[in-house]
Amino acid sequence: MKTKIITKSIELFERNGFTETSVQHIVDALHVTKGTFYYYFDSKEALLMEIHLAYIDDLLQRQTTILTQQLSVKEKIKAIIGLLIFDIERQGKSAQIFLKEIRHLVAENGEKIKAKRNAFRLNIEHLIQQGIENKELKQTLRADTITFAILGISNYSYNWFNPQGEITPLALVDSYVEIILNGISNDS
Amino acid sequence: MKTKIITKSIELFERNGFTETSVQHIVDALHVTKGTFYYYFDSKEALLMEIHLAYIDDLLQRQTTILTQQLSVKEKIKAIIGLLIFDIERQGKSAQIFLKEIRHLVAENGEKIKAKRNAFRLNIEHLIQQGIENKELKQTLRADTITFAILGISNYSYNWFNPQGEITPLALVDSYVEIILNGISNDS
Repeated sequence: MKTKIITKSIELFERNGFTETSVQHIVDALHVTKGTFYYYFDSKEALLMEIHLAYIDDLLQRQTTILTQQLSVKEKIKAIIGLLIFDIERQGKSAQIFLKEIRHLVAENGEKIKAKRNAFRLNIEHLIQQGIENKELKQTLRADTITFAILGISNYSYNWFNPQGEITPLALVDSYVEIILNGISNDS
Repeated sequence: MKTKIITKSIELFERNGFTETSVQHIVDALHVTKGTFYYYFDSKEALLMEIHLAYIDDLLQRQTTILTQQLSVKEKIKAIIGLLIFDIERQGKSAQIFLKEIRHLVAENGEKIKAKRNAFRLNIEHLIQQGIENKELKQTLRADTITFAILGISNYSYNWFNPQGEITPLALVDSYVEIILNGISNDS
């Protein structure tokens, strides 16, 4: 039931927004009572926090898997872009909520999630820095700016990319990696 | 007074969200009556629509100015990225609202704004296509994907870029143009 509540809430939050969706809407859509909801979650905000935590913890874990593999920096960059793009197909609606509704978390929870997001970003920045140092990447780059460019390209895809459309997720990853790497690779 | 209402509302929407900000909050913050508000705007939604229209019409107009100049495709790409990045400094809060609150417009107004956003995007796509045809850009590119990459990098900056920080807006534009162009330029 807990998973059902989470899945249905994600659907409703994505369609109508977090503020506009009440606990009543959620339980009505599931044909259960408010009691059932409050058995699993202290509040609507607690539920939102759980969605955020599950999302970022999963991303961080998969990022760690990539970072600890025996791969070049460029291959790791490609894998991380893949992680973000494939997630559109894998959990499109959670991703939308993850990106849009963070301000509805209470301050303390918002800070926890932001710290984890920062960790995800700083892992990429560290990787880029490593690539600059081992000369896989251009020596003139700022690792922080490149990191934001990578996150920007990947995260913006949620606004328009349809994984069932003409471009496959794999083709999109290849095309973005091509743009980014040929822009930042040290081919000299 | 109309401009004052718009400016103050942008501030409140950005800080607290559109849904959470009532007309009462807006008039209280300005020490005026609700009557004053409704003299200028039919509703809170009408005000939001006005913010959206002003923002996108201004962007489209400045984009047209760039596109009609005697510049290479690459120079025009740079100018359009500049347009988006400099706007963070120029009208950061409107931009936030423009990007986040579109779903609160009524269906018909939402469609009008989306059509204008699409026009902005398709102008870039057309420019990229032109660059592919005149061989300034690589022949293998998909103009639509590149366009989304450019919009992604630029628009994502609103999430993190502080124009008063260590990196100046000009340096950021240069750095993004460098990443994108060296990735998509046909240097062969």
